[in-house]
This record gives sequence, structure tokens and C-alpha cells, in this order.
Amino acid sequence: MRLLGIDPGSLVTGYGVIDGDRDNVCYVASGGIRTDPSSPFSDRLKVIYDGLTRVILEFQPTEAAIESIFHSHNVQSALKLGHARGVALLAVVNAGMMVAEYGPTAVKRAVVGSGRADKEQIQRTVEMLLNHRMGKGYDASDALAVALCHFYNSRTERRIRLLEERR
Amino acid sequence: MRLLGIDPGSLVTGYGVIDGDRDNVCYVASGGIRTDPSSPFSDRLKVIYDGLTRVILEFQPTEAAIESIFHSHNVQSALKLGHARGVALLAVVNAGMMVAEYGPTAVKRAVVGSGRADKEQIQRTVEMLLNHRMGKGYDASDALAVALCHFYNSRTERRIRLLEERR
Repeated sequence: MRLLGIDPGSLVTGYGVIDGDRDNVCYVASGGIRTDPSSPFSDRLKVIYDGLTRVILEFQPTEAAIESIFHSHNVQSALKLGHARGVALLAVVNAGMMVAEYGPTAVKRAVVGSGRADKEQIQRTVEMLLNHRMGKGYDASDALAVALCHFYNSRTERRIRLLEERR
Repeated sequence: MRLLGIDPGSLVTGYGVIDGDRDNVCYVASGGIRTDPSSPFSDRLKVIYDGLTRVILEFQPTEAAIESIFHSHNVQSALKLGHARGVALLAVVNAGMMVAEYGPTAVKRAVVGSGRADKEQIQRTVEMLLNHRMGKGYDASDALAVALCHFYNSRTERRIRLLEERR
């Protein structure tokens, strides 16, 4: 299966695409959709939506996962992040896909093994797991981490289903 | 000119369409796009986006205005509202329109004359100004109030421009 992971943000929305079969995962693509802070906010939302729609069209993922947000520094940043995450979710749903949601702690625990891992640790683990050297910034590696979290989660679910069928 | 006013919300997104020429405004349409709280949040965002897109296609407004949000009860409700407002803005921008933004106090002041008006007062004033009896709930009248605010604002701007050209 091909998985798309999304790390939404009003300034940069990270995306990461991986291929996974039963036991192996490999890197396909990743990057950041950057918006211009000096342009109208509604135009920036369009950049995020169009950017993700292009990524979906190009790489044809079969499943998508996005980081869920429960906390924010304040109401203002929550509002901004909500706008960005809203259009990111819409891009996935408008492409006919379901989207799984994982909290930041769940992502860190699934990928690094600790819910308290920092962004640097996440990036190094993602680089190691996917055998791919990441560039500067954490948007792409955070998105790949969400995709990896979804892969591990789906794999566990599949195994449980198989075990239940054999009983 | 034909104006679309939007009052975004994750449960109900109000819309109101008015026609305005130099001095007169008249009611065209209004309503609420209701989402099912029991369905996945991403599907509810699609309902808001598709609903507004349909309203724009049907009534072909030339300008749009939306209520801006600065405050919220808490981070959780700000996040939810941000998602809804994000896809509402995207529906307008994807239809090729610019969107003006007005704070709640500016809308109340422009329509009722007082920045402290409550929803009941807004609805009664909207009914009077547009000579149209509204149904239950305040989503449609709040959206019409945003459209009216934009109409008055544009009219003032046009008058100032005319006066400046004559000087």
C-alpha cells in the first residue's frame, strides 16, 4: 500500500509518501508546501489545498494519515492551524480517500518508541527507517513519521485480524 | 452587485445572498448548511465546502464577505471553528472570488448601529432592512448581516472615491 502522511501548518504543510508491504517500508517522496505570509490568508489556504491535491494526483496514495491537534499555544494559533488543517483534510476527502488521525504522542511512540521524542530524534529515526537522508527543516520528516505511524498501526490491525480468522 | 455573506460554523454554516445597487438592497436567498455531528469531521468539512460551492454556483454572487474570528471560548472550539472557516474561505477562493472579512463588532455596528447588539436584535434589523421574515435560528440572519455590512462598507468606499475624483 502507498501511504500519504500530512503535517499541517499555515506556514508550511509537510507531506510524506511511503510504500509499505507486509514488513518493509520504503521512501517515495516528501516535501513542504510553503505559503507566503505576506499574501491573503485565503490565498494561502488555496496553496495548501492545491499543493496537497497535486501530491495526491502525482503519487496516487491509497491511504492517508494526518496529525491531530489537541493543544495549541493560544486561541489565535489554534484558529490559524485549524484553517490549514481543514483544507488539508478536504484535499484528502475530495480525492476520495479516507484519512486516519494520530495524536503527536502516538506518532512519536510508534516511530521513535518514546512519546517524548523531539523533532531531531524523529527526523533521525525516519532517516534510518526509510534509509533516506532528509533535508533541512522538520516538516517533511514529521509528515513521514505520521505515514510510518499509520503503516505500523495498519500492520498491527491486519495481524490481529489474521490471528482472529485462524482461531 | 450581488453579495454573499458567510457565517462559518462546524455545526451550521450560515449563508445569505443580497442584491444591492447604489442605495437599495434586497433579499435573494439565505439558509444554513448543516453538518451531522455523528459523521467524521472530514466529511462534515466536505459538506460545508460542497454546500457553499453549490450556493455560489446557483446564485452567482460577485462579491463575498465572511465574519472574522478573533476570540473563542477555548483552544478546542477555536480549532473546530478554524477548520470550518478554512473550507468556507477555500470554497469562495476556488470559485474565483475575493473575500472581505469583518469582525463581529464591525458587523453589528454597520447593521444595527451598536457593536453590542445581540443575535435577536441583528435578526430583527436584518428582517426590517431586507423586508424579509426570517425563520428560526440565527445562522442565516448572521450571514445576511455580514453581507449587509460589506454592502454598506463598499458603498461608503465608492462614495469616497467619487468625491475624491470630483475634487
